[in-house]
Formats: sequence, C-alpha cells, structure tokens
Amino acid sequence: MNEEDAFPKTSANYAALSPVSFLRRASGVFPSHPAVIYGDRRYTWRDIHDRACRLANALRRLGIKEGDTVSMLAANTPELFEAHFGVPMAGAVLNTINIRLDVATIAHILGHSRCKLLIADTQFSPALKAALAAHGDITVIDIVDDCAVLKPGEGERLGKMTYDELLDLGTADTPPPQPQDEWDAIALNYTSGTSGLPKGVLYHHRGAYLMSLGTVAAWGLPQHARYLYTVPMFHCNGWCHAWTLAIVAGTAVCIRQIGAKAIFEAIAEHRISHFGGAPIVLSLLVNAPEEERRAFDWPVRVMTAGAPPPAAILEKCQALGLDIMHVYGLTETFGHVVQCAWQDSWDALDFPAQAAMKARQGIAFPTTDDVRVAVPGTTDPISPNGEELGEVLIRGNTVMKGYFRDAQATQQAFQGGWFHSGDLAVRHPDGYIEIKDRLKDIVISGGENISSVEVETVLYRYPAVALAAVVARPNDKWGEVPCAFIELKEGAQATEADIIAFCREHLAGFKVPKSVVFTGLPKTATGKIQKHVLRQRARELQ
Amino acid sequence: MNEEDAFPKTSANYAALSPVSFLRRASGVFPSHPAVIYGDRRYTWRDIHDRACRLANALRRLGIKEGDTVSMLAANTPELFEAHFGVPMAGAVLNTINIRLDVATIAHILGHSRCKLLIADTQFSPALKAALAAHGDITVIDIVDDCAVLKPGEGERLGKMTYDELLDLGTADTPPPQPQDEWDAIALNYTSGTSGLPKGVLYHHRGAYLMSLGTVAAWGLPQHARYLYTVPMFHCNGWCHAWTLAIVAGTAVCIRQIGAKAIFEAIAEHRISHFGGAPIVLSLLVNAPEEERRAFDWPVRVMTAGAPPPAAILEKCQALGLDIMHVYGLTETFGHVVQCAWQDSWDALDFPAQAAMKARQGIAFPTTDDVRVAVPGTTDPISPNGEELGEVLIRGNTVMKGYFRDAQATQQAFQGGWFHSGDLAVRHPDGYIEIKDRLKDIVISGGENISSVEVETVLYRYPAVALAAVVARPNDKWGEVPCAFIELKEGAQATEADIIAFCREHLAGFKVPKSVVFTGLPKTATGKIQKHVLRQRARELQ
Repeated sequence: MNEEDAFPKTSANYAALSPVSFLRRASGVFPSHPAVIYGDRRYTWRDIHDRACRLANALRRLGIKEGDTVSMLAANTPELFEAHFGVPMAGAVLNTINIRLDVATIAHILGHSRCKLLIADTQFSPALKAALAAHGDITVIDIVDDCAVLKPGEGERLGKMTYDELLDLGTADTPPPQPQDEWDAIALNYTSGTSGLPKGVLYHHRGAYLMSLGTVAAWGLPQHARYLYTVPMFHCNGWCHAWTLAIVAGTAVCIRQIGAKAIFEAIAEHRISHFGGAPIVLSLLVNAPEEERRAFDWPVRVMTAGAPPPAAILEKCQALGLDIMHVYGLTETFGHVVQCAWQDSWDALDFPAQAAMKARQGIAFPTTDDVRVAVPGTTDPISPNGEELGEVLIRGNTVMKGYFRDAQATQQAFQGGWFHSGDLAVRHPDGYIEIKDRLKDIVISGGENISSVEVETVLYRYPAVALAAVVARPNDKWGEVPCAFIELKEGAQATEADIIAFCREHLAGFKVPKSVVFTGLPKTATGKIQKHVLRQRARELQ
Repeated sequence: MNEEDAFPKTSANYAALSPVSFLRRASGVFPSHPAVIYGDRRYTWRDIHDRACRLANALRRLGIKEGDTVSMLAANTPELFEAHFGVPMAGAVLNTINIRLDVATIAHILGHSRCKLLIADTQFSPALKAALAAHGDITVIDIVDDCAVLKPGEGERLGKMTYDELLDLGTADTPPPQPQDEWDAIALNYTSGTSGLPKGVLYHHRGAYLMSLGTVAAWGLPQHARYLYTVPMFHCNGWCHAWTLAIVAGTAVCIRQIGAKAIFEAIAEHRISHFGGAPIVLSLLVNAPEEERRAFDWPVRVMTAGAPPPAAILEKCQALGLDIMHVYGLTETFGHVVQCAWQDSWDALDFPAQAAMKARQGIAFPTTDDVRVAVPGTTDPISPNGEELGEVLIRGNTVMKGYFRDAQATQQAFQGGWFHSGDLAVRHPDGYIEIKDRLKDIVISGGENISSVEVETVLYRYPAVALAAVVARPNDKWGEVPCAFIELKEGAQATEADIIAFCREHLAGFKVPKSVVFTGLPKTATGKIQKHVLRQRARELQ
C-alpha cells in the first residue's frame, strides 16, 4: 500500500450515497416549493420531508427494523411518493406491488418478499383480501382516498389503522441517516421473468442515487421541473423519478387513473414540462377526441420506453408539442439505462428518417458503465453492422444487487460479469442499438410484462389442453397482446371462449390471451416448440 | 448479516466511480462533436479520447506506475484538458501547478508531491529551470505552443522531448479501466494554507465523478454546453469542468491569456453558453472599453466564486446578458460545494435586494452531504439568525481524501467529522450562508490565495524588520491586495520601495505587498498581533 491509500474514509469526506439525501436538501433549500400535487391536495418539499420522517418514525415504532420489507399496493398518490423516502429513512426496503396483479401473484409476492407491513389503497381490497388470507401475520395499513372512484366491492378497510393514523404515530424528527452502507437495499421490485414466478429485483441506495443524477444529466431536467407522474410508481420505482425530482426540487403531479383527458388537463393546468410513458400513453394522447384535448404552448419533454415509438405516433406527438426521448431499460437496471440521444446531424434528415432514428433504443446513459451487444451465450461483442443479432448486456452501478432469495438466477443473470437482458438487438455503425426480438418469451402489453410461461402454466391446467404456447401478437392499442396456440388432446374439445373464461379465473385480466388458435404446434427435431414460427403466425392473424 | 447483504459486488453491478468513464461515453456517442477549441486547433471528443489514451499509454511506457505523480505547469491549453483524462487513465495522479508561483514554491511542490514526470509549457521555463535545479531526476516534457506570445527569456526547451513526441510514444488503445478502487487518488492540488507552506490536497475518483454530476444538476448544464475555460485548470482542476463537460459532451473553448477582448471574442465567435470566473473577471468585462466588446444576444450563464460579486458588477453583468450564479468552495472541496440557488420569491425584490441575495454564498450543492455553520472550535450549529458568526463546516463525498504527506493537518482539518473551512459566516433564517471573514489570514487577490504568513516570513528576513503583519486591503481591481504593516528595529531604517523590492526577489509577483505601512503594531495582552485592528486600518488607507 502506498502512502496515498492510507487516508481513511471519515464522515467529513465520505457519505453513503442515498437518494434520501436529496429530500433533506430539497426540504432545507426549497421548503415551500410544491413537491406533490394530487387533486386538491398540495404538499411542499418541507411537507414531504416531514411526512416521510413521520412515516419512518412510525414504522420503527411498529417494530420495523433495518432490512425489513415494507410493501405497498397503491396507485400514484402522495402516499406512494413519500414512501420512497420514508421507508428507506426507516432503514427498510420498499416493495411496491403492481396493482393489476391477480390474487395468487400478490400472495406470492407478500410471502416471498417476507413482507412485514403492507400499506394498501382500499381500492384494491378485493384482490388483496384474498391474497392476505395466507398472510395473517402482516400488519396492514389502509390508504383511504376520498378521490377514489370506487367500483362495487372496492374500498373495504382491511387494516389495523389508516395511513393518516400511521403518520400520527410518528414524530417529524429526522431519523438518523440511512444507510450506513450504500450497498444496502432500498427497494424490491417483482418482475415477471421467463419462468412463471415473478423474481424480486433488489435495488441498492447507491444505484438509486446515481440513477437519479444520471436522469437529470441525460434528460436535461431543469430546476423546478414540473413532472406528470403517468408512469406507475410500482414499475422500477416509477423510473426512480421521485428521487430524481428531489434533486431539482421539481413538482410531481399525481393522477390516479391515466387517460387522455386527465393528462391533457394536468399539462394545461399545472404547466407540465416533463412526463414519461409507454408508447401506448402517447397513442392515447394523439388519438384523443377533440373534447378531451387541452391546448398548451410550451414544449413538453417525454421519456418513452417499453416499445419503440411508431413513426406515426412520433409525428403526431411532434405536432402536439411533445419532444420524445426513447429510452430502454429493465426492472433489473433501475429502469432506463440506454437513451436515444439526439445527434445534431439528424437535424438534416427528413421526418421518416428521424423517426427511424428515434425508434432505436440508443446508447448508454452517462451513469451506465457499459452496454454491449454480444453473441448469444457469450460476452463477445457482435459486429456493429446493423445486421448481426446479439443479446444486450449491461453493466454498471445502476444494475440490481440481484434477485432476492434466488442466488441461482442472480448468478445466471450476471454470467461473465455482465447483466444479461434477454433482449436481442443489432448495433448500428454509429453505436446505437436497436432491439429486434427477445430471447425470453415476454409479451409486453400496455407497458406490462406478461410471462408467456405463466400463462402457459394456466393453460396446461385446462383438461382438454395437450400443448400450449403463448406468444406476442402485435396490437395497435396495447403494443402486444398474448396469443395462445393450443394443441388439444386427442378427442378433446374446447372453444376460444372456454379457454379465455378459464384464464380469466386464474390470471390478471391483462394476462389473459386475447386470441386462441387451435392447431398442431410446430416442433423442433428434439420436440421443442418453435415459438418463432408461432410469433410469425401471430403477426399474420387477421 | 441478513440475506440481502449477501449479494457480492460484481462487474455487472458495480463499477468504481471515475470521471474517465464520461470521456469513454462522450467519445463513443458523440465522436465528431467538438470537445476542445484553442485558437486554430480543434479536437473532437473522439480526438480527446484517443489523445488521452495515447498519453496514458506513453506515460506507462516511460515507467509511470499506479499512484505516481505526474505534474503539469501549463496554461489552459488542450494538453492540460486532455491530461485530466490521460493521467488518471494511466493510474497516475495529476498535479497541476499554479503558473504564477515563484521558483521556491514550484521547487517545493515538485519535491513534496514526489513528482516523477513533469509536463511544462515552455512559456514558464524561466521559473521552472531554477525550480528544477534541485530535481534532476524528474523527466520533463515540453509543451511547445506556437500560439504563445513569448517574452524574452521564455520558450526555452527544458525537456527530453516535446508533448507531441510523448503522444507519439503511445498507442490509442484504451488502457484498462482505472481505478480499481474509486477512493484512489486522481489529482493533487497544492493550496496555500495558513502556514506559509502549500498543502497538497488529494482528490479521489469518487469525488471527481460526483462533483461533475452535481455541477450538471445544480448549474443546469445542458447537452452540448459551450463553455469558455476562463477558470485556470490549476485551481481545483478547473472546478472539475473538464470532467463535467464530458458528461454533456460540451465544448471547451480554451484561451491562454484572460482579458476582456479575448473573452468577448470567444463568447461571440463560439456562441459561449457558460463560463466561470472570480468577480475580477466579471469586473474586467463590465469595465471593458467599447472597442474590446462584442455583442451577443443569447443568455450566458456564469459561475462566480472567490469573493461575493458586488452589486454594481451584478447590475452591469445583467445588462450585458450574463446570468450570474454565486458559488463557494475551497480547494479541499473539489471547488464549489455551496451555491446561491435562486428562489422564486426573489423575483419580486428590487435590484439592490436581489444583488444582496446573490452576494450570499448560499446552500449545499445536491452532491454535498451537508454544510454547517458552527460555533468556532466546535461542531455545534450557530443560530440561523443572520448575525451569529461561526465557522463553515462541510462534509460529503466531494471533500478531499486529505493533505498529502500531512496526516496531522488532515486530522486537524477533519476534526469532529467535518471539514473545517476556516471561513467565518452567518446563516440567514432561510438557511443561506454568508461569509463575513476568515479565521485564517488569507488574502485573495485576483482569485489567487496569498498566505499572509508566507509573505510575513519573507518580511522577517529583511534585516531592519522587527515585526511584520500582512492583511488584506480592499482593491477595486483585484478584490484584495496584500498590505504589510511593519515595526522596524530600533534605530533601523527602510522605505516602502526597499521592502517591495526585497519581496519581489523572494515572492511571486502577485504576493508582493502593494502597500507598506511603518508603525508600531497593536498587540493583545499576551503579545499577539491584533490583525483585526490592522485589517480595519488597511480598509481606511487612502
């Protein structure tokens, strides 16, 4: 060891990276600047800080300890926003659950995550009540939201207290800084993988901090950005934007239900400068009827992900005043780690050529260590000729710690020192990547990942089914929908309606196949179903 | 240890933070975008990357090893810019030396830093030649710049080869990533402290990386910012801006000599969007004669530091189209860690009140863990009432590793887990700090720190001097100039001209007292010179 290395880290020159620090600063510097707007509710950065402190202190009072999992089943409301700070402040791990999941999956997540306490919006009580049947030991807190438009059966209180009562248990004293180690977990996000069972993606404080700074730099997020939270906070912690907004003391406008009318209203009334969403959200906007639209005369910057934005949508977005940046990432990478950064030389291109450029996923984020397209099964880069297909590999500080309680899957995902995305791409001569297909059989419908294996597992439980394969079928509205190809047992009979009804009983609505084709399945010599043949057939279905 | 902590760091999910990674990306994504402009010389980001690789590989070929010090005595030319990447890429530590220093101090730095190799502009050969007399073992490389307007005696080649010949020794292959440990040293910057001897402030890769991202966020630095490098790169590595510009693939316009004409020309011809400088640089601009001015019709954002910008200058800057952000920091904090962030509520103030707000140093940067004003000698916060004086304490990841080869000074600076700035400030009720005085006796003249102790040490060597004290005297042009108060020995005689001539022989020009007062020195009961009395008298001098 040479002399320079002898300098110990002290609290003077070393602080564990954590996005919670951004809230502390925003509250100190811009205490009265609006942080969250939700209907008639308004919170300043000081409010959010104080509420997060109260949440953290209340959780501790209820026995939550360092490393414990606190789950939330909530819409994009202030409670979920502030929990992104309050739960980590308590030293706990925030597990946000997709509100569209079915009972069995919610139950699985509550068990697998070792959830100690669950904060849930009563809108989702019907599914939750059933999911909780096997988890009587979990403390439940109710978010009771007067703004919620509840359907019959929704709104039942399942908890021991309301969220507001929970906050009342805690003082607004700042808890001691968390974490001691920036490698500590901050969040746990379940994603559907190739196997039917969702995997728990564990985020660390270090990654969340760097992801947030990277987004400010790569998206050019200005001081006091006005952000519309259309992206669900249960996906990659809402692309880490709650933490990101604290850096620039921005304002998050939350809405419970996404629709063209609500989005246009929010843009016009709150002078939204930035929002994010899958191309389906853009599609909603450009196809909205005249009466749902609202005019605005400032540029709005939009981050889109989940599927390449189609040229027709890009053109209409541009006419509306939306400036689209296409990004790419996965739950395992804290969200977006690849961006389609604009090149000055594209200014001279005609619109279709520009749209083709924007449809590519792009290049590494400033905070992404490296992105490689590799010969599948290796880490050797493919030739950047725009033709050779390879798997997208990612590495850097905004890649997950690993899969919670699944060392084998973690090891597999990190083989060769890179995270293996399972997506197949080409690399163009300018270095931009363009995703062409998936190694894994995921259907992305309306921005939601659907594991084909999970759906197939249900199909196989239907008595008449011999073989089943689910692939993506292109769909104008949803991007993709699941399409089932089924080989029936000899002599057995079933209709499309039978199959769909059966799936509806056992799967979340968005996972149910929208079309069912009865056919002999194409197989390889070794008997493996040839999904690429079926994908082709699904594309050609009328 | 609970289960979550079991996840090892792998190259998939952990990369040592280093600003070198920003160059790798800028070169890959924006290869043909201009990175550096200097006179007729133009370099793209690919060029800078390739030249930095060649520099790194050449340094290794010359035997430079990990942790070795590579010094540079250079103006703001492309060589110094690219060395900010090339030297760390070689695993070495970049030691930039102030070009205005005297022979003895340069010699001290070369020895104390354990310099192995020195890259020096031949403009500075006169002082360097003398300084090198005691350091025959150092390999010297000459920067030979045709643009340099050399005075008689300047331009002598002292090295074994030119910088261009050095680059020719290296290949453009990317060297393996440095560092393995983000706590490794990246730079060594000597600062004058309270003692006369300069202290070597050691920066780590982690701090340099976070400082750069923090500046993008806090200054709102956009993609492809066009930055005029008026700030010397030998001060806090040019406020870390070479690294920062790589994040946004900006363009650095370098000029050798700062003057109003050169700055206006650069702004107009290169459409400069951002620059930095001490208030004296702003003063140069607003007081420039008409024929040196150039019109520009876009806003230019300016970061100013070193002294509070006076209201009169702020007003004239505003009229010119300069948008000033006042920042504060020290060599020990990688430069700016406190910023006078604008509050919306200030929009309603009249100009004098706005100027008073802007003259305050402000609040913590997003990447600064914390800033405190503490009761001197303690770490207890003073009351934020705008009146109580305390010492500014700073902590976080953008504080130095420590003072090189000075464990005692390091320990003292980090007492109580905070870096002690030595500056006295009040904290206003809104949390903004305003520096009022210095604990240490530094004179800041034209943005340069002058240690009064160092000047006094020279004065004491003059035979007729009994007692000497140097304090700052306010000066319209330089901000402050050193003013010497001297008590002569009984019966001894000296004139102001004698003293100034003596100092000129032993000190760099900017450190020489501009006025000398012969007087009996005011002392405390215990015989300590009362500098605060002298400061007051210096202020009142006609």
